[in-house]
Amino acid sequence: MDILFLGTSAGAPTRQRNVTGLAVLAEQGSDWYLVDCGEATQHQLQRTPLSVHGLQAIFITHIHGDHCYGLPGLLAGAGMSGRKAPLPIIAPAGIAGWLKATQELTELFLPFELEFIAVENMQGWTDGKLHVQATKLSHRVPSFAYSFTEARTESVLDIAKLRAEAIPQGPLWGRLKNGEDVAHEGQTLRSSDYLTYPHTARRIVVGGDNDTPSLLHEVCATAQVLVHEATYTTDIAEKVGARVQHSSAADVATFAADIGLPNLVLTHFSPRYQYDSAQSPSIADIRTEAQAHYHGQLFLAEDFARFRLHKNGELSRVEVL
Amino acid sequence: MDILFLGTSAGAPTRQRNVTGLAVLAEQGSDWYLVDCGEATQHQLQRTPLSVHGLQAIFITHIHGDHCYGLPGLLAGAGMSGRKAPLPIIAPAGIAGWLKATQELTELFLPFELEFIAVENMQGWTDGKLHVQATKLSHRVPSFAYSFTEARTESVLDIAKLRAEAIPQGPLWGRLKNGEDVAHEGQTLRSSDYLTYPHTARRIVVGGDNDTPSLLHEVCATAQVLVHEATYTTDIAEKVGARVQHSSAADVATFAADIGLPNLVLTHFSPRYQYDSAQSPSIADIRTEAQAHYHGQLFLAEDFARFRLHKNGELSRVEVL
Repeated sequence: MDILFLGTSAGAPTRQRNVTGLAVLAEQGSDWYLVDCGEATQHQLQRTPLSVHGLQAIFITHIHGDHCYGLPGLLAGAGMSGRKAPLPIIAPAGIAGWLKATQELTELFLPFELEFIAVENMQGWTDGKLHVQATKLSHRVPSFAYSFTEARTESVLDIAKLRAEAIPQGPLWGRLKNGEDVAHEGQTLRSSDYLTYPHTARRIVVGGDNDTPSLLHEVCATAQVLVHEATYTTDIAEKVGARVQHSSAADVATFAADIGLPNLVLTHFSPRYQYDSAQSPSIADIRTEAQAHYHGQLFLAEDFARFRLHKNGELSRVEVL
Repeated sequence: MDILFLGTSAGAPTRQRNVTGLAVLAEQGSDWYLVDCGEATQHQLQRTPLSVHGLQAIFITHIHGDHCYGLPGLLAGAGMSGRKAPLPIIAPAGIAGWLKATQELTELFLPFELEFIAVENMQGWTDGKLHVQATKLSHRVPSFAYSFTEARTESVLDIAKLRAEAIPQGPLWGRLKNGEDVAHEGQTLRSSDYLTYPHTARRIVVGGDNDTPSLLHEVCATAQVLVHEATYTTDIAEKVGARVQHSSAADVATFAADIGLPNLVLTHFSPRYQYDSAQSPSIADIRTEAQAHYHGQLFLAEDFARFRLHKNGELSRVEVL
């Protein structure tokens, strides 16, 4: 499972960072999932290997423009590219209303169906490859995290058990490996009794805007990775005031340390933080603050940075653009 | 008067061209006017010297997304930059409805007022520097051209007349030059009687999407520059079919030749035309087709190309980004 950042700036773009967008990529093939779609996400996609034809679903965390103003253009572009497959959009209900108004008032006719699912009522979503679950967060408007859990994990035959039960090696083993229940010496051997899963299902949690990271306690307990906003360092968060309902680097890092999270990726940085660490304030200040509280593996997102969650639960940055 | 292209691609962006946006710049100072606002216009502006604080008004030619989907983000960004001045938006009535829906459904609160003027009913707009007039075009949805005419042209004293009437050189001449009526030897000398205008008011006409350039006949008669879409070459226009209601390079060039237009700038090229002239079809094909019909000064727009309309009516490309 990979994640590829399309935008990492809060509120407004900078010359180095677009507003929020994140692609979650399935293990194999060209399937991918989009979380949030700030303005110019379609422009960012033109600089990646991702195609609108491989897009399986869109998840929107909340209605603020820096997380959704790229939707009309992305959908129009997908239409012009000849997409025909229905497209699920899991989002706060207001997004459905806004896209409907947009389609009507700008005469946007799409050659594919939009399947809206209001996240407020969603019990879970799956396409058979990933299970997605929503968790309510705390922000100025209703905001949600999405957790992506792989649906299938690779199975291997339990050779020791097969040998202990003297089940003869050969085609029969192959059929059990393929999930088939097999008649053998008057008994039915159930495939599921002879398969084991050497790695647990991977889970990546992607938060929306949120001032209370501990709301993710339960869903993060079995996650290897949390992607969360860290809009400010504490000093600037205090100047801006609590009404904006964002998290500081310290807030998120403290939460991640408390639950023993192995991998934390911070994103959604206020545009005031300079890319260049020689300037002040800079993104490096956010890293420094987070490191003071969290000693797991910490990454700060950048546009087009791609990370891979390996089967063993390790997260590493990959350079495959 | 300058024009600065922010986007020159039709329908969808390419890696070299954004969707439509054009800045018209006043003669002096930081005042400017925006014609159309495709998605990521605010991103493009970050690569120019233009500021949202100098933006005097926005003109939208028609409701199609590639001409307006950048509006919500541009307005949100202007709000975050602390703009307080009211902002006139001259646009088809549907744009007002769409922006109202967008503000409500995405909780976009702006610290400045939007002053909507429905172009369908507009008799003309001015800020004292430029007069703007709208002309209805022919497209799949109501579409308009905007003509920008300078309101004041620089005056000079009619020295010959002053001398012929023996009006003594000195402070009195200066007052007449400044527009003041002056008492002199029992008479009132009217400033307007002693001022002449060595150059005519400059006019730039910026078309929206349009399949009938001749609709601009009247407004172009006193214009030095027409900026017009040339979405296709004739061969591809015929394949696509007339239902899209765009102009070919030949259509626009023939019109410009017929009326003796001195300067023609083509833009809004279908993304299928390659930037690289070694590829096919390429933007160079559009130039070749236009040149076969029009022998005035022809330019093909590029993103960030800036052109200056000089007082003598000449248009030249300037490199001042």
